[in-house]
Amino acid sequence: MVSNKNMSDRVLDLIDKRQNPCIVGLDPRIDKIPDCIKKNKKDLNNPFEAARETIIEFNKAIIDNLKDIVPAVKPQIAFYEQYGSEGVKAYEETVKYAHQMGLLVIGDAKRNDIGSTAKAYANGHLGKVSLIHGGSSPSFDVDMMTINAYLGTDGIKPFIEVCRELGKGIFVLVKTSNPSSGELQDTTISNGVTVYESIAQQVAQLGEELIGERGYSSIGAVVGATFPRVAEKLRQIMPSNFFLVPGYGAQGGKADDVVACFDDDGYGAIVNSSRGIIFAYQKEPYSSRYEPEEFYLASKEAALDMRGDIVNALKRSGKLVGW
Amino acid sequence: MVSNKNMSDRVLDLIDKRQNPCIVGLDPRIDKIPDCIKKNKKDLNNPFEAARETIIEFNKAIIDNLKDIVPAVKPQIAFYEQYGSEGVKAYEETVKYAHQMGLLVIGDAKRNDIGSTAKAYANGHLGKVSLIHGGSSPSFDVDMMTINAYLGTDGIKPFIEVCRELGKGIFVLVKTSNPSSGELQDTTISNGVTVYESIAQQVAQLGEELIGERGYSSIGAVVGATFPRVAEKLRQIMPSNFFLVPGYGAQGGKADDVVACFDDDGYGAIVNSSRGIIFAYQKEPYSSRYEPEEFYLASKEAALDMRGDIVNALKRSGKLVGW
Repeated sequence: MVSNKNMSDRVLDLIDKRQNPCIVGLDPRIDKIPDCIKKNKKDLNNPFEAARETIIEFNKAIIDNLKDIVPAVKPQIAFYEQYGSEGVKAYEETVKYAHQMGLLVIGDAKRNDIGSTAKAYANGHLGKVSLIHGGSSPSFDVDMMTINAYLGTDGIKPFIEVCRELGKGIFVLVKTSNPSSGELQDTTISNGVTVYESIAQQVAQLGEELIGERGYSSIGAVVGATFPRVAEKLRQIMPSNFFLVPGYGAQGGKADDVVACFDDDGYGAIVNSSRGIIFAYQKEPYSSRYEPEEFYLASKEAALDMRGDIVNALKRSGKLVGW
Repeated sequence: MVSNKNMSDRVLDLIDKRQNPCIVGLDPRIDKIPDCIKKNKKDLNNPFEAARETIIEFNKAIIDNLKDIVPAVKPQIAFYEQYGSEGVKAYEETVKYAHQMGLLVIGDAKRNDIGSTAKAYANGHLGKVSLIHGGSSPSFDVDMMTINAYLGTDGIKPFIEVCRELGKGIFVLVKTSNPSSGELQDTTISNGVTVYESIAQQVAQLGEELIGERGYSSIGAVVGATFPRVAEKLRQIMPSNFFLVPGYGAQGGKADDVVACFDDDGYGAIVNSSRGIIFAYQKEPYSSRYEPEEFYLASKEAALDMRGDIVNALKRSGKLVGW
């Protein structure tokens, strides 16, 4: 949705409203979606339409139950796109529904390309696309998206232009949460800094022009929960850039690990959990308490537990705000 | 399309059959598509359907006229995806039609993510996706695709698994063609090699297990036409990896610049041109010879001219094969 307000201010306001810096990743892995949703999709024309309807019904139930708890959702487009145009329809429908329910949407797409192509991605995901008889229209219209910077600033600037024009936001991959992230990202380059530090410096500089009223830029960074010491260094290099923090929960990041991503007032980061929340019905302690048909209640409890864990860890560290 | 044959052998055989190592990039920029195609799309329900139909009609005309000249097409998914599910439908239709016309398809998607998500991308683009009532099905089903390696081998291996199982291929971004590619890719890392050399070493190693009968791996590399000296170094580091070479034509790469991407026998690289071929009708000398309605004839001539330029440059260098 288009806004004149800086995206970082919108995120911070919603974090305050929900008293929660945690978001939920909508990664609809078909084989983990409960049968109660899948069973009535048999009569659809083809299995891709069935996948689309399954994903939409599952996501809507999650959104309905989490809309007053989290400030944003982060659909991972890979799990939609894999079902082709039908899957992308489910992505579009999910974005629209999350907006209707008052949530911000972070499209986790990690797009990257040369300048003129990056512009097509920026227009399609965040901005407006050219129509064949003139004029333009929003397409996916997510609020923020993730970006890969391997191609340099040529490939980032088209996204920043859209952020400037339409009040959107991006998160540039700096230090990712996966085990092999260090292979390239941790290597030291000739001036003595690591690749992730070098990208962080670039993000800090690129974000300077888009700082909101509350001191954060709408140009943010992806910083994995799984490397707390790295996060501490990166918080210093990027004092005004929002962190999108993946890797909490299923990937092994703990609440105390993510504290370093926050500033001294307990702001500046949003922590994502996907599998740990949306498929909570499959694991303890939630699987003992809820039937698969109540998967959304398990997700709600898991989201509240996550909020509690992160907020308590922030409080223990002495960082927190007055919630 | 699934095959037991190593993808590199299939590419080499088609290159021999067409006597052409050049491919055409299908990047349907709506504002450059001639009005003759757009004018009869006014009565469609919505502008996204109109964009879809415009793209499909344009691409089919290009494919019809180039199918006996080039071995493969490379649709850049950004220009489809920007129109949401309708645009992705045009991508699906384009892939299918190119296959029907006997062409290989390289999906230029530059996807990247953590392992479990990379698997979803690999399944969706190259492999087979899980269906809600069991079993699996191909989705986009392109033959090869481009990949970004910023996340390390975790994010590459799921694609390689699909290449191994289904005879598909990938191209890992090593040195891209854009002006700012050097910002990260050219930096020297602690062991004295550049980032692009380091990724190249990784690609060479990862590709070893999937070498075809003609000596090339189905794990290839993207190496821009705009940096010939770099290409020369990379050819040595990756003697058995196919190069996908963007940047020729509109981006400034000349025929003599791409010679370094080929091996001594004139094999091992495919050179892409997108705008220079598909929108040839808009520029000299083709714009003087063809009306906009004959855009596909301009494209055909431009493709033949490109083939001539590259083959002649290879001959001048003493590298070429017997065509």
